[in-house]
Amino acid sequence: VSQPAAARPDAIRRHNLGLVLSLVHRRGELTRAQLTQALGLNRSTIGDLVADLSELGLLREHVPTGANRVGRPSHVVGPRPDGPYAVAVDLEADSLTSAAVAIGGQILARRESKLDPEEHGPITVAEKIAGHVEELAAATAPGAWAVGLGVSVPGLVRASDGVVEVAPNLEWRGKPFRAVLNDRLPGLPAEVGNDADLGVLAERVRGAAGGSDDVIYLTGKIGVGAGIIVGGNALRGHDGLAGEVGHVVFDPGGPPCHCGGRGCVETYVGEAALLRAAGRDIAPSRESVAAVFADARAGDLAAIRAVSQIADSLGRVAANLVNLLNPQLIVLGGSLGEILTLAGDTVEASLTRHALAAVRSSVSLTTAGLGEDSSLLGAAELAFQVLIADPVRQR
Amino acid sequence: VSQPAAARPDAIRRHNLGLVLSLVHRRGELTRAQLTQALGLNRSTIGDLVADLSELGLLREHVPTGANRVGRPSHVVGPRPDGPYAVAVDLEADSLTSAAVAIGGQILARRESKLDPEEHGPITVAEKIAGHVEELAAATAPGAWAVGLGVSVPGLVRASDGVVEVAPNLEWRGKPFRAVLNDRLPGLPAEVGNDADLGVLAERVRGAAGGSDDVIYLTGKIGVGAGIIVGGNALRGHDGLAGEVGHVVFDPGGPPCHCGGRGCVETYVGEAALLRAAGRDIAPSRESVAAVFADARAGDLAAIRAVSQIADSLGRVAANLVNLLNPQLIVLGGSLGEILTLAGDTVEASLTRHALAAVRSSVSLTTAGLGEDSSLLGAAELAFQVLIADPVRQR
Repeated sequence: VSQPAAARPDAIRRHNLGLVLSLVHRRGELTRAQLTQALGLNRSTIGDLVADLSELGLLREHVPTGANRVGRPSHVVGPRPDGPYAVAVDLEADSLTSAAVAIGGQILARRESKLDPEEHGPITVAEKIAGHVEELAAATAPGAWAVGLGVSVPGLVRASDGVVEVAPNLEWRGKPFRAVLNDRLPGLPAEVGNDADLGVLAERVRGAAGGSDDVIYLTGKIGVGAGIIVGGNALRGHDGLAGEVGHVVFDPGGPPCHCGGRGCVETYVGEAALLRAAGRDIAPSRESVAAVFADARAGDLAAIRAVSQIADSLGRVAANLVNLLNPQLIVLGGSLGEILTLAGDTVEASLTRHALAAVRSSVSLTTAGLGEDSSLLGAAELAFQVLIADPVRQR
Repeated sequence: VSQPAAARPDAIRRHNLGLVLSLVHRRGELTRAQLTQALGLNRSTIGDLVADLSELGLLREHVPTGANRVGRPSHVVGPRPDGPYAVAVDLEADSLTSAAVAIGGQILARRESKLDPEEHGPITVAEKIAGHVEELAAATAPGAWAVGLGVSVPGLVRASDGVVEVAPNLEWRGKPFRAVLNDRLPGLPAEVGNDADLGVLAERVRGAAGGSDDVIYLTGKIGVGAGIIVGGNALRGHDGLAGEVGHVVFDPGGPPCHCGGRGCVETYVGEAALLRAAGRDIAPSRESVAAVFADARAGDLAAIRAVSQIADSLGRVAANLVNLLNPQLIVLGGSLGEILTLAGDTVEASLTRHALAAVRSSVSLTTAGLGEDSSLLGAAELAFQVLIADPVRQR
């Protein structure tokens, strides 16, 4: 065994504090006995760590109320309402959703603003986020404090520096968004991530993909993106830009795409394709897309046929991904989740027809367990990383 | 830090012996000083480990001859010609290539047999491999011994049990090939892997992909397969079946594929597609494919046009993979390597036209550094894993 540089006691303590915090974050309230067992540390060490975390105001120990228990009540270690929270932001083309998210994933407060195209500039968006940050601070319990800011962006985000390479629906190209956020909110360390990458992160921690090590989260908002986990790790690619399934070519003879290509996946299963298939000559928006689904549910034949057509294409897209990546689970979010809900049989049949039998048999399809909040809660995970890496420095 | 079960001294020693062996295997001859530095162990521990490995006959220490050195000659630790070797086998539809591969990757002896379609049964193949094993034993130095058998197969191999799920060009389906090999050669632990997965493994250890953590190895033999490394780890998928890029759909309106689908990648960049593009109505074989490339080199216009057409499609296939996986390097093997050599500009231009600029800029294309031997040498890596995991048990 190669010998690491000797870890100083203080570094070990910080690391262990992070482990306890991370475990409570992922699993919720736990007794000291459960912490002892899960972390393989001895009881007195756990006791010291819990005491430290309580003193730092990061967790609290209490006896759960309302529990119908027999025998001596057991103390549990859990989040505190006046403790640290992450500011999570989901930036979409037409809206900005922010939330104060506690350790454990509970949403303490939420703000949502409409976003008009003329408000798409990074500085304007940062200004609006700063407004949300203030409102969330006012809406949370006295004493609670923000530890970091995580922002989900519908575009390609370079991992190394938080530069948004391309976000077509915001008309961004090479925008140093993390730097803009850090300028505007110097007290709040900011991280920026791709919406689908953050979606799959959250779905795995507390959504539909718990326990799966090979997962594809496919989401349709205006564009189509994928967050991919292989062998338990996020598939990032060399620059952190992996997952642009929306611009994989589905049919080289297909319609032109805004990216300059032809027949991209997005032109077959994106929201504009759904509206076009339904014969509606309007731009995709939350309302126009929801209307197609509502009409399909109500029995409108054109809407049903449109959903069915997208469902068949979605099965083909999934088949290509299954042949290439052999996943265990595909989680469908945004409008693609609605397609699965409304026309799951069509999606499944198309997948079966187009995927190799050996890989088809081990994959399941499911809708996002966190609904519309996958990317938002993934952004919270991003913000918590700083706290968990060093719980002491935060106070 | 969570506490591992206390490692017993003997287990630590075996682990450290494996580390030394693995390092010499990857980097070749090394001085004790280099080993000490690379492994972070102290000098006396390294001395003991080297002595143990020498006594086990796995490595030898010697003064290099012929070196034009100044000062006191330094002993180096390296492979020995009468030491352990892996039996590596590359099974293709029309041939069986075997090699005795020493620690360090040197091929000590090699055997090749033609394989006729009527010899494609797993038991017949195992019989032929057993013949090669004997011939290789006779061709290596007295005292040298085989530590394991690694076989590269042109098909989907289930990682857990070495069952070949599908190998179209051998007409195999659900063949328990690892079990068949272990039955026929009970003394030689066998491992079976997919040819492209093994190709990328070898290219990363000692070929064109050293130092790259995000690599796609795309190979064209009769079929088209991919071995993919993401974030430094092999992308295996849930059942170890990832990488079937040959049956990702390139054009849903394209020609029928033997898999039952239409317009698969294989029907555009596979060897049959090359022959068809060149107007040659013959089955792909080593000779018929080589003839097209030779004719293109000699200036035959139909052959040049065929190569150029495949090159354009190859650029499109690469673009889809680049958009999805954001690799740093694509290594092209088999006939796809020849396409790159002959029409690299066309491949690069097509890739540029069809990939997103943000991911296109960081990817390079290159031919396989190990030429025809990528999969063969990857199979050797598979066989060495057992030795490196426990060098002591081997004698």
